[in-house]
Amino acid sequence: MALIVQKYGGTSVANPERIGNVARRVARHKALGQQVVVVVSAMSGETNRLIGLAKEVMPNPSPRELDVLVSTGEQVTIALLAMALQELGVKAKSYTGSQVSIITDNAHTKARILKIDEERIRKDLDDGHVVVVAGFQGVDEQGNITTLGRGGSDTTGVALAAALKADECQIYTDVDGVYTTDPRVVPEARRLKSVTFEEMLEMASLGSKVLQIRSVEFAGKYKVKLRVLSSFEEEGEGTLITFEDDNNMEQPIISGIAFNRDEAKITVLGVPDRPGIAYQILGPVADANIDVDIIIQNVAADGTTDFTFTVHKNDLQKALDILRDKVQGHIGAREIIGDDKTAKVSVVGVGMRSHVGIASQMFRTLAEEGINIQMISTSEIKISVVIDEKYMELAVRVLHKAFGLEEV
Amino acid sequence: MALIVQKYGGTSVANPERIGNVARRVARHKALGQQVVVVVSAMSGETNRLIGLAKEVMPNPSPRELDVLVSTGEQVTIALLAMALQELGVKAKSYTGSQVSIITDNAHTKARILKIDEERIRKDLDDGHVVVVAGFQGVDEQGNITTLGRGGSDTTGVALAAALKADECQIYTDVDGVYTTDPRVVPEARRLKSVTFEEMLEMASLGSKVLQIRSVEFAGKYKVKLRVLSSFEEEGEGTLITFEDDNNMEQPIISGIAFNRDEAKITVLGVPDRPGIAYQILGPVADANIDVDIIIQNVAADGTTDFTFTVHKNDLQKALDILRDKVQGHIGAREIIGDDKTAKVSVVGVGMRSHVGIASQMFRTLAEEGINIQMISTSEIKISVVIDEKYMELAVRVLHKAFGLEEV
Repeated sequence: MALIVQKYGGTSVANPERIGNVARRVARHKALGQQVVVVVSAMSGETNRLIGLAKEVMPNPSPRELDVLVSTGEQVTIALLAMALQELGVKAKSYTGSQVSIITDNAHTKARILKIDEERIRKDLDDGHVVVVAGFQGVDEQGNITTLGRGGSDTTGVALAAALKADECQIYTDVDGVYTTDPRVVPEARRLKSVTFEEMLEMASLGSKVLQIRSVEFAGKYKVKLRVLSSFEEEGEGTLITFEDDNNMEQPIISGIAFNRDEAKITVLGVPDRPGIAYQILGPVADANIDVDIIIQNVAADGTTDFTFTVHKNDLQKALDILRDKVQGHIGAREIIGDDKTAKVSVVGVGMRSHVGIASQMFRTLAEEGINIQMISTSEIKISVVIDEKYMELAVRVLHKAFGLEEV
Repeated sequence: MALIVQKYGGTSVANPERIGNVARRVARHKALGQQVVVVVSAMSGETNRLIGLAKEVMPNPSPRELDVLVSTGEQVTIALLAMALQELGVKAKSYTGSQVSIITDNAHTKARILKIDEERIRKDLDDGHVVVVAGFQGVDEQGNITTLGRGGSDTTGVALAAALKADECQIYTDVDGVYTTDPRVVPEARRLKSVTFEEMLEMASLGSKVLQIRSVEFAGKYKVKLRVLSSFEEEGEGTLITFEDDNNMEQPIISGIAFNRDEAKITVLGVPDRPGIAYQILGPVADANIDVDIIIQNVAADGTTDFTFTVHKNDLQKALDILRDKVQGHIGAREIIGDDKTAKVSVVGVGMRSHVGIASQMFRTLAEEGINIQMISTSEIKISVVIDEKYMELAVRVLHKAFGLEEV
């Protein structure tokens, strides 16, 4: 008998009506003869409501008590979902993280799962129950309630699937899978039947909104078959997340086009070409907790070079201030230029490792549309370019077409 | 070192501001060198909100899952109160019923406490913590979450006080104690320094709103010193609830005047005086789940008698319909009369057991004001009369004065 773990996020259980919809979906799987464990998040908005209450009482809430507080969010959902299943005539039982011994370390608000005692769940499954487990929470060895941090419900789902050796872990979200690119930009965007874990990581603008990185790493480590599906549409097959050693034959060369319009570009012109200069530039930026994405330094000509990197647009002014105040004079750079009219477009695919010519095809396609490339950065399975943001949608569309990613 | 258990109800913790007030009060007790265990209810309105959610999902919610759901209400409060204490610099730790092993039977939604493992609490107290425990909830031997039923937080407080052999269990409510009568009717009403458990039970119109009957029984069984105080006023000494064997010297004869304007009177005239007649009248009324309070049947004259009883005014019409449809013809009663312009006034006091003359003083006082007595009913420590409701306040005031209960 197949055993599946299904995880439903906050928007999927946002109100009693949607909880009823989830119950009907679970009931259909049960009717197919599957054993089903369901992991749920708090109803959307609930966790923020609770944190708001905490901050009224204690501006900087103590982590142990914050975990006691916010863990009630999932506890409400498990009870309601178990009731909704019972209302459909399906035997169901709810459990908190503590009740099924999801043992974590004691790092409150960002705990890591150490082990799960799956015996109680297995017994209920064998008795014909659907088992509904609170995501995002656990208990430390001393019995204190812990939480796994935002998005931790995905991790609970994967960890339970690993402990129970489930046939599949199905993550239900508000999208029905991972797409070749954002369908709002390219209507012909196609849902991928499968995508590798590494592609998911690279396709940040698509992937990271669908699945928590940590849960995907966890799935990779424990070889859990992971699938992303929509909780708002009829049963589809979603997108299967695969791993390096899955030995996929016919891996497509390019899986998708990712993009991001949130990045601004900073160029430090006329930097002396000497060791340690990159650290002298980026050290003060990092100290201010500003994340840096792409970093490019070209070879030097006439003893100086230009150093360019990207930051989130919200951090641009702060980064420029730091560079002009603390760095420019110190390292003797000629000029510092900021540009927030930029966008990043990436072509992603594990297949490009063994296929030369992807980069040249990408650059030719953009050139044919008259799109100037400002920066280029590559990794093993990704080529990113920074361009003027006004061309972003155009670039995504032509690249999507050039690499044959359309719906067929 | 004195150990006290304090219990705060839903209105005392209704919002973050009030939770802050409770924290300041607890901190004052801690500063006096007392060890403090605090039991809290859900924020007022929260339990009803949760039950409302449940009913949207399952019109008749399953008891096990209802307990998982509503127990989150107190869990939210314990975390917030522990935070509020920490914000004041007081060491504090919160615990759910499950975490401190408040073991109950498995009668979901109305469980009874079987035992409490007080070791964990005692250790935290010895480490200088205030221990905040969720009221109203426990866990059965199999680890299922249970609740004690409405008002169960009082019971949790008393049970913890018993288990920890606390010096006192202080129940904080929205009144500052038990009064000789309702101060809204008699401005001179006086707070009682102490009242016996039995008097509390009889003074329904005062007592039952202050404390849950079950928790008082529990306190009596385990000899817990119980005190009712206000959470909205400066420190007072409230009212101490005492028990039969407390050997109170100088027990006052009369403790208070209770009243109730919710009762309607039904009289069945011309009932044949034969065995079983009371059952034939009241059986159909009880079958319709109508509660009956006072019942009076006088001795028969000329082979028939009159049978009178009181019901809640909301049930009057329903009771009359039943009696006229199913009973009157069957037993051959002459007439059935309903009257909802009635009120009940009671004089309560354990001292009256050994003092004759209380009844005659009561009746004389009412007669002097021209108040006609329609019914009389007595118990060991109470005399109740039913009168025209328009005289109720007058009756309460003159009796309060006649028995010397005014503020001195």
